Amino acid sequence: MKLRDLAKRLDCLLEGAAADIDADVDIVRVASLEQAQPGDLTFLANPRYHSQLIGTRASAVILGRDDPSPAPCPILRSEHPYRSFAQAVALFHEPLAPPKGVDRLCDLAADAVLEADVSVGPFVTIGAGAHIGARSTIYPNVVIGAHARIGEDCVVHAHVSVREGVILGRRVIVQNGAVIGSDGFGFVKQPDGSHLKIPQTATVVIEDDVEIGANTTIDRPAIGETRIRAGTKVDNLVQIAHGVSVGRNALLAAQVGIAGSTTIEDDVVLAGQVGVSGHLRIGKGVVATAQTGIPNSVDAGAFISGYPALANREWLKSSAIFRQLPALKKRIARLEARIAELEEKLIECQTRQIP
Amino acid sequence: MKLRDLAKRLDCLLEGAAADIDADVDIVRVASLEQAQPGDLTFLANPRYHSQLIGTRASAVILGRDDPSPAPCPILRSEHPYRSFAQAVALFHEPLAPPKGVDRLCDLAADAVLEADVSVGPFVTIGAGAHIGARSTIYPNVVIGAHARIGEDCVVHAHVSVREGVILGRRVIVQNGAVIGSDGFGFVKQPDGSHLKIPQTATVVIEDDVEIGANTTIDRPAIGETRIRAGTKVDNLVQIAHGVSVGRNALLAAQVGIAGSTTIEDDVVLAGQVGVSGHLRIGKGVVATAQTGIPNSVDAGAFISGYPALANREWLKSSAIFRQLPALKKRIARLEARIAELEEKLIECQTRQIP
Amino acid sequence: MKLRDLAKRLDCLLEGAAADIDADVDIVRVASLEQAQPGDLTFLANPRYHSQLIGTRASAVILGRDDPSPAPCPILRSEHPYRSFAQAVALFHEPLAPPKGVDRLCDLAADAVLEADVSVGPFVTIGAGAHIGARSTIYPNVVIGAHARIGEDCVVHAHVSVREGVILGRRVIVQNGAVIGSDGFGFVKQPDGSHLKIPQTATVVIEDDVEIGANTTIDRPAIGETRIRAGTKVDNLVQIAHGVSVGRNALLAAQVGIAGSTTIEDDVVLAGQVGVSGHLRIGKGVVATAQTGIPNSVDAGAFISGYPALANREWLKSSAIFRQLPALKKRIARLEARIAELEEKLIECQTRQIP
Repeated sequence: MKLRDLAKRLDCLLEGAAADIDADVDIVRVASLEQAQPGDLTFLANPRYHSQLIGTRASAVILGRDDPSPAPCPILRSEHPYRSFAQAVALFHEPLAPPKGVDRLCDLAADAVLEADVSVGPFVTIGAGAHIGARSTIYPNVVIGAHARIGEDCVVHAHVSVREGVILGRRVIVQNGAVIGSDGFGFVKQPDGSHLKIPQTATVVIEDDVEIGANTTIDRPAIGETRIRAGTKVDNLVQIAHGVSVGRNALLAAQVGIAGSTTIEDDVVLAGQVGVSGHLRIGKGVVATAQTGIPNSVDAGAFISGYPALANREWLKSSAIFRQLPALKKRIARLEARIAELEEKLIECQTRQIP
Repeated sequence: MKLRDLAKRLDCLLEGAAADIDADVDIVRVASLEQAQPGDLTFLANPRYHSQLIGTRASAVILGRDDPSPAPCPILRSEHPYRSFAQAVALFHEPLAPPKGVDRLCDLAADAVLEADVSVGPFVTIGAGAHIGARSTIYPNVVIGAHARIGEDCVVHAHVSVREGVILGRRVIVQNGAVIGSDGFGFVKQPDGSHLKIPQTATVVIEDDVEIGANTTIDRPAIGETRIRAGTKVDNLVQIAHGVSVGRNALLAAQVGIAGSTTIEDDVVLAGQVGVSGHLRIGKGVVATAQTGIPNSVDAGAFISGYPALANREWLKSSAIFRQLPALKKRIARLEARIAELEEKLIECQTRQIP
Repeated sequence: MKLRDLAKRLDCLLEGAAADIDADVDIVRVASLEQAQPGDLTFLANPRYHSQLIGTRASAVILGRDDPSPAPCPILRSEHPYRSFAQAVALFHEPLAPPKGVDRLCDLAADAVLEADVSVGPFVTIGAGAHIGARSTIYPNVVIGAHARIGEDCVVHAHVSVREGVILGRRVIVQNGAVIGSDGFGFVKQPDGSHLKIPQTATVVIEDDVEIGANTTIDRPAIGETRIRAGTKVDNLVQIAHGVSVGRNALLAAQVGIAGSTTIEDDVVLAGQVGVSGHLRIGKGVVATAQTGIPNSVDAGAFISGYPALANREWLKSSAIFRQLPALKKRIARLEARIAELEEKLIECQTRQIP
């Protein structure tokens, strides 16, 4: 695509660099600052890579409206450089069209309903009374349980389990191997020490525009429901326990674990390996840094870290002192020695005064 | 079901509330205090939800024998309210009967043995010499390796891998995507820095009444065995390494990781994301709170937290002080200043005395 | 196998013990010191099990060249006892030969290329233009995406997803349920709070002799590549995010998580549940103990622990003091009381001097 045309498609202003603009240069790919070659479009959205810009071999770079960085190539000025980058990647990507229709090597229940233009791969099982919305793609070896409902325009990758009765909204993407609707971890301890299984009879609802990562697990509860609200994105290997409710547009990074019956409100961001205990409420917009352990409910808007979780500022300060603990301990010991000496001297002093 | 009959089935005493008992009311569902509607049975097993009881719209509530909470509806008095709740959930649940028999689209080795009344779904592979016990259900797309043995009355959900030679007892439940018998992570470092694979030739034994969570992985060792004893329940995304031995009736919550050759004794409870190092012994009845990191063996009965793990009481105290570290550091600095001043003054004092 | 022949096969020197050597004894198995029975070969590579040697019932033991431990049985002297153990395990193991050829119940794209002597199990899907190298084994229910390339002599276990365009080198082993090439977790936040998906259009390259653990997930990036270099071993349930680069001969233990665009250099060892933030560089040979959280780049050769990660020695010292914090806090309070008393007394002292 000519650079000139690309600028239009991305709604960016095309600007000259050191040399004259060659608006006719052919752009063939999007690449990072470091790896870009002639013919590539690159981008600078994160100021930490500033210094790499000057040496890039790219044929053009996406820069923010007011970014003063000197570029060695033509510039595409953008209000939102990271979004323009995402759009450029999409422009150069020809997605693999999954095969049309329903593969003959799949197992459909007689009363399963498949709407128009679905694609169903080989070795897929679709249970009794299940419903697949129009234009949805079910990749090979997926198992859809009885009475599950998949909305329109969904993409369900290979090896996903959608258990009985689970409901997926529209435009939901499920990466490979994810399990939606496995039994919650609910047992009653018996007098003899054994654990009686509580039947996990309720279901899971995944709303519109949610994405679920590879090998993530989302459990069904005994009663009520487990629900992930519209627009939330869940990364790989995340555990969402029975009865959890996740709000809209949350981001749950890889290996996060959320224990049973906890409510995560809208716009929450949990970084990698964060753990949240059960029966809590994590307020709107809370951000937790990687590996944070959250044993108590958290007020909206908090920015937290550590285990147990503290305000991030507090945690940074305490962590900085944690590594000074050996030195602090020595200072305390020295203080004790000095004060003992003082006490002795003072007694001497007083003794001399008495007579 | 009439409330009167439900009380009998649950072995509970039916008690009046503010109004007269309507023992003929039709109960149709079990629901939480918060979500219950007329026609629902609810329960109060956890005192933290006490205050929600008065506002419930449920038609009846399960309460403990001596629970004095005033209920706005008839009460089912129970010795073990949580157990009665579990039984009630089961009463109202009509489990999906998996299709009878063996699906024609599965791949059975000629010498595999399937006992009476098994259910085997489509796209299942059962290897040479494998054995499936009576009344066990194998859901679609499960792969059972050669010479594996599944006991009676097991339920193996979709996408589970039971590798060659693995043994499952009776009434074992395996949730979707779990892997039992993958190769342990065993390598010998070579002089050139490469890692020589140690063949993982021994197997995994899962005893009776164990439940394994979704996408959990249990490795086989090179020699000896990996074993999970009767009645233990393992949640989702748990890693159990090669040669680990887990005792009876243990509970391993989601994302727990246990390194190689460690022994977990009976009745141990590991909360979410706990990590246990290799070659340790975790004594009977140990309880570790979420995210605890256990680098050393632990005596029976201990209640531990933190990383490295401490007695929970100690950890709570130290954690409370961790957040006061900036204040403590300031107090130390102030002490140093005050003591320096005192030292100076005392010298003055002494100087005056000398003449 | 006769002990005499075993010694030759393992390139070990056969030595007498308390009794005369019975070089003709038949060795049938390799077993641990504790579990060995007559007829078993055992080994002592880790000095912590020294005391178990004297009581072993094994018929022979592998010991290091200069290990002075007194053995109650014949000794196989080895330069590298752990390697000899691995070789012995292999000698006594008859691996299950996967069925030859291509199962008739699999779905091969018309233009997929299968080289000589591959084994492809039932319910396997191989996409358009994919390539399977000679002598590779594809177990049941594996899904190989379009244009993916599997090298020679690979073993891909059941339920693995190798997504479109992914490249595996030679002798790669992938344990059950692993996902290679799922979409990276890349989104652009929109002004309305929703998250725009960045198409993840680039791919994943796994080099020769890599092993990938069960249910591990390795994401593809939007641009560039995700790469795992030759000889690296990855355990179960590990998350490797989009654009990560892992060097040669690294070891990533179970449940490790590595965030996007981070570079892990050669020979790095990350123990279980370690988390590494994005856009970092972890230098050659770094070793991180279990549960370490790494928020910043780390110099080559460092040995680190804790969260945030410190030098292991520092972390051990600070952790030891962490548990003494309640005592330290009391010492500070006592110092404050003592110093207040001193200050008072000194004033008295000075007051008396004034006149």
